[in-house]
Amino acid sequence: MSLLTVGTVAFDNIETPFGKAEKVIGGAATYISWAASYFTNDIHIVSVVGEDFPEDELSALESRGVNLEGLQKKKGEKSFYWSGRYHTDMNTRDTLDTQLNVLADFEPILPESAKKAEFVMLGNLTPQVQISVIDQLETKPKLIVLDTMNFWMDTAMDSLREVLHRIDVLTINDEEARQLSGEYSLVKAWHKIKEMGPKYLIIKKGEHGALLFHEDYIFSAPALPLAEVYDPTGAGDTFAGGFIGYLASTGNVSYPNMKLAVIYGSAMASFCVEKFSLERMKSLDSDQIENRIEEFENLVYFDTKLNGK
Amino acid sequence: MSLLTVGTVAFDNIETPFGKAEKVIGGAATYISWAASYFTNDIHIVSVVGEDFPEDELSALESRGVNLEGLQKKKGEKSFYWSGRYHTDMNTRDTLDTQLNVLADFEPILPESAKKAEFVMLGNLTPQVQISVIDQLETKPKLIVLDTMNFWMDTAMDSLREVLHRIDVLTINDEEARQLSGEYSLVKAWHKIKEMGPKYLIIKKGEHGALLFHEDYIFSAPALPLAEVYDPTGAGDTFAGGFIGYLASTGNVSYPNMKLAVIYGSAMASFCVEKFSLERMKSLDSDQIENRIEEFENLVYFDTKLNGK
Repeated sequence: MSLLTVGTVAFDNIETPFGKAEKVIGGAATYISWAASYFTNDIHIVSVVGEDFPEDELSALESRGVNLEGLQKKKGEKSFYWSGRYHTDMNTRDTLDTQLNVLADFEPILPESAKKAEFVMLGNLTPQVQISVIDQLETKPKLIVLDTMNFWMDTAMDSLREVLHRIDVLTINDEEARQLSGEYSLVKAWHKIKEMGPKYLIIKKGEHGALLFHEDYIFSAPALPLAEVYDPTGAGDTFAGGFIGYLASTGNVSYPNMKLAVIYGSAMASFCVEKFSLERMKSLDSDQIENRIEEFENLVYFDTKLNGK
Repeated sequence: MSLLTVGTVAFDNIETPFGKAEKVIGGAATYISWAASYFTNDIHIVSVVGEDFPEDELSALESRGVNLEGLQKKKGEKSFYWSGRYHTDMNTRDTLDTQLNVLADFEPILPESAKKAEFVMLGNLTPQVQISVIDQLETKPKLIVLDTMNFWMDTAMDSLREVLHRIDVLTINDEEARQLSGEYSLVKAWHKIKEMGPKYLIIKKGEHGALLFHEDYIFSAPALPLAEVYDPTGAGDTFAGGFIGYLASTGNVSYPNMKLAVIYGSAMASFCVEKFSLERMKSLDSDQIENRIEEFENLVYFDTKLNGK
């Protein structure tokens, strides 16, 4: 089924304890689309880039089944740019520079082909932009997933509250879930956030995995312990892309299938961090993905019927 | 099979955001024994208390099948005392006071009844004391589990290295695994720690669960997300007690059974934190434990064969 993703298409400057990657391709919509493209080839990006964005990167996306009709290209302007440095723990980072450029006055315009999307992934952007995308949809999607961050909780809480009422799945990290709900316990946080609109909450915990909350159910997905983590940039977006890409490919939004989607998202994120930027995401195949899903299965498997035997 | 546990039997003063518990019963050997007593009633404690330790607490342990022949009682002296305050996150704490008292010159003496123990749990104490216990064993146990902490890595690394060569399972937290190995990646940390002696490594991650490493296998156990966490004191020891108690009850130290033991340990720890001190550990029954094991099973269950259907 068709998938619409809205988010940045951008440049990143990344420093990790393992090295530097200067002005590499980044952006939420880029990572989401690459990850989703291993599951479906009916993907629409709504975003904006400047004149400086390399054409071959866009062609590479198109060759993966990504429709770029909704990607605005601003003549004489520059693409969104983010620069950051990761600490030794790879879980925390400092933002060194953010240049909004084309993003400063971005108004999303959905092409006709995207207005009936059945799956919608709203990457981390201002809640106002996310609302505008929902407003332009002509049919009610099967599923809307929203990513956001603490910055919007601090600066645009009213709009964030509005968009939360109109989506199905919210993905945030544990600190953001605590900030949004005012509750330290993630179980209590979910019960508060549920009242704000989302039917599902995914809490991304990086190297500690992810939690999926729905009604009174909790699903705990592990993270695959890795010998090498080169670059965590885009891992959250890659997770989201694998999650919604898998769901769109199956057309099934049942809770059991949603759990499996969290595992697909986690598997895609585990690939993403193995190399800098999009490098690993561009060199995957479905056998590698299925093998990794099996690794996740083995990682958590235990047999209660064993009971000492 | 018989289980010998060595560790503190002590008083705790605990402050959490939910309240205070003054001079309550604590100590590694106490938590380990209470947790293990739900699986086996052939438990020996080797430890030391002062004249101030309440007799009824010792009787309560005896009524759970705990043999106290190896518990030294020092006339005119005071029991080990620890006082700490937890931060809002409940994962970090400040030690406010530590009074070694009887522990200052503790020399463990194994009674005859404990010298042929088949399962040995060495709670967190000086590595010298842990070595002395192993020296006194008359037969090689089926399994020796060692708990330790960063303090001994800083102050007694030579003795710690020595004891690591003589044990089977090491339980530490993620920061300690990083310190001990000098590796940030826990996968790499395991490969370094394996060279130091242990055949198994359990990394306790508190609210993020636990990892079990063995050869090239990794098992990820979730933590049960809880609405209320009142007091994390003793959770690590309770984990160890559930882990080794379950193994001792089955007599089976295969890797698949070890994985299930990690789940039993995690289940016991999830009870422990629900109330202050030993309160919850004293009011359990086997139905509650089996129900919780089922909760852990459901928590991580997903079906790859579903694949959208």
